[in-house]
Amino acid sequence: MSTSKKIFTTVSKDRTSNARTGVMHLPHGIVHTPAFMPVGTNATVKAMTKEWLEEIGFEIILANTYHLYLRPGADIIQEAGGLHGFSGWNKNFLTDSGGYQIFSLSGFRKITPEGVKFRSHIDGSSHFLTPESVVNLQAQLNSDIQMQLDVCTPYDIEWKKAKEALTITTDWAQRAKKAWLETDESYQGQLFGIVQGNFYKDLRKESIESLLEIDTPGIAIGGLSVGEPRDVYCEFLETTAELLPEDKPRYVMGIGTPDYILDAVYNGIDIFDCVLPSRNARNGTLFTRNGQLAIKKERYARDFNPIDATCNCRICKNYSRAYLRHLYKNNEILFSMLATFHNLAFLHTMMVEVRASIESSTFTTYRDQFMQRYNGGAL
Amino acid sequence: MSTSKKIFTTVSKDRTSNARTGVMHLPHGIVHTPAFMPVGTNATVKAMTKEWLEEIGFEIILANTYHLYLRPGADIIQEAGGLHGFSGWNKNFLTDSGGYQIFSLSGFRKITPEGVKFRSHIDGSSHFLTPESVVNLQAQLNSDIQMQLDVCTPYDIEWKKAKEALTITTDWAQRAKKAWLETDESYQGQLFGIVQGNFYKDLRKESIESLLEIDTPGIAIGGLSVGEPRDVYCEFLETTAELLPEDKPRYVMGIGTPDYILDAVYNGIDIFDCVLPSRNARNGTLFTRNGQLAIKKERYARDFNPIDATCNCRICKNYSRAYLRHLYKNNEILFSMLATFHNLAFLHTMMVEVRASIESSTFTTYRDQFMQRYNGGAL
Repeated sequence: MSTSKKIFTTVSKDRTSNARTGVMHLPHGIVHTPAFMPVGTNATVKAMTKEWLEEIGFEIILANTYHLYLRPGADIIQEAGGLHGFSGWNKNFLTDSGGYQIFSLSGFRKITPEGVKFRSHIDGSSHFLTPESVVNLQAQLNSDIQMQLDVCTPYDIEWKKAKEALTITTDWAQRAKKAWLETDESYQGQLFGIVQGNFYKDLRKESIESLLEIDTPGIAIGGLSVGEPRDVYCEFLETTAELLPEDKPRYVMGIGTPDYILDAVYNGIDIFDCVLPSRNARNGTLFTRNGQLAIKKERYARDFNPIDATCNCRICKNYSRAYLRHLYKNNEILFSMLATFHNLAFLHTMMVEVRASIESSTFTTYRDQFMQRYNGGAL
Repeated sequence: MSTSKKIFTTVSKDRTSNARTGVMHLPHGIVHTPAFMPVGTNATVKAMTKEWLEEIGFEIILANTYHLYLRPGADIIQEAGGLHGFSGWNKNFLTDSGGYQIFSLSGFRKITPEGVKFRSHIDGSSHFLTPESVVNLQAQLNSDIQMQLDVCTPYDIEWKKAKEALTITTDWAQRAKKAWLETDESYQGQLFGIVQGNFYKDLRKESIESLLEIDTPGIAIGGLSVGEPRDVYCEFLETTAELLPEDKPRYVMGIGTPDYILDAVYNGIDIFDCVLPSRNARNGTLFTRNGQLAIKKERYARDFNPIDATCNCRICKNYSRAYLRHLYKNNEILFSMLATFHNLAFLHTMMVEVRASIESSTFTTYRDQFMQRYNGGAL
């Protein structure tokens, strides 16, 4: 990679909000935004085939650098032709930097300005990653979008700690950019910087100003949805998002429920990811227009209706709640397969509708009607 | 059901063995034989979709009456339109009688000439099943082939015990036939009697003679592959099979490895089932022409070849051993999905080849070459 070119084109703007539709131009095809990205931690979206992801219409999925670095190792994936050759998914991959997993999964970690030392949650082995090595790992994976290494902080830390973490994160963004520019020119993946600054507006502003100077092709808002109250999330989403430049794709990490997604879209966010839709599916919690449905409930034992009669996904056309409940109660793998397909298809359909509503400048109405019905408790 | 009509047509006979090809005429379409039937205990072949089973080419799958009777209950399945309506699989279902599961899973059971009392392995609840109730349960499930209730015996019992068990099994066959003839005429499923008699040739002969008199549309050989040495299995398979009538389909229960299947075909058996191909798949043991492959082995970590380069299944065309090993090591559901698909496709392909070899009267050569390579240990 040798230049930091423009990868995002705005297609239309909603007049009732900051929502926008656009197109991201990536090495493995374009991505229509706003888009939800399913999480495929180990280069597989759990219980889904690549054909099903394509059938639903996804253009990009996420994989976790931390997990793949530890097992099977970036060298094996590189030898297999990157994530695409390894998994067979030939549309785009976004990989995270591993930072979040180091903070949440690793039993031991030590951050220095140079990088982060940690122990594997699998076998306790010691590892040291730097902003540069993380860029190179993601290049080995051949990620279409790669994330800088950052320092994640919990919800309730004091300003001084948040400032320290941000200073390192900003330095790492600079170093990541340099390393990314030095990757082999055959590598066409794009680098995203990450806004940090915890829940301090001055730090968030400072973070964005630094990132604009560093000039990465895309920008992510990190450190949201980390346990803060919903109104704090909304406030910081809004005040952070409005400082982001128009010409770069905007990414909020770790959100995947309709309410959070619709809020993000309202504030002009283009992409988001979360394990929740697929994890909830495996746990028996299914999306419907009328809210979430817990399939284990006795009331569905003889319910021969689909999960959601208004859903056009293959699962809703083929299977009843009664059969799905039976599979769930028997811990059948097919349950995870069908439930995950439905939940991801449901979110994807919502995103298609979101894009249409933005293009007709009716997004706010769409959001309000969607949420009214979703929260209506008709189930 | 009101008559015991002929459901099997012989298509061709191998001149080098007793192998034969044929067609079974069943309510949900014809079944080309010899055929392997995947096991779908809970009305789902674990980790497989109905579309994949159809893609591979299966025309019949098995479901377990015992499990479905206990959960979700035959009435719910009947309400859903039988097994087909419930699961969406629109080709044939064979259901077993539940006898085998009562003997292997239930903590408590008591056999009387009237029927069998047992406790559920799920919740300890008490149940009593008779030959008649088992016929009616399977009619509720709308099974295309249903099995009589029988008394299963272990490998090493004495003649007197085997005789007692057989006497009850024969009486139950008679009662099952009567109950089956009395089922509603809308029910078109076929009844199979089961040959028992343990490992006593006189009892096996007596069992078959009784079943011929009772005249069920098909006959199964029960009580084989229950822990006996392989030569004992072969001997009893041969001496039992040669007493079976030509005009009825012949079924050996519980076999699913290439060697046992090819022996069964050699002796003129038409259908067989086993959980092994799918269970082994989930445990990481994959069929190849050169024998079984244990995917967990370190040697496959960087092996970018398919499971079997000569296999035309979708898995072998799309995925490497390295990716499959990675999925296996991470307990990914996708591993079970892909591995099961491959193992079932492998066996199905073998059966297609078996049928072709019978039609060209070269079955013995086919079997010898297949087994030579399979046992060759090239892996």
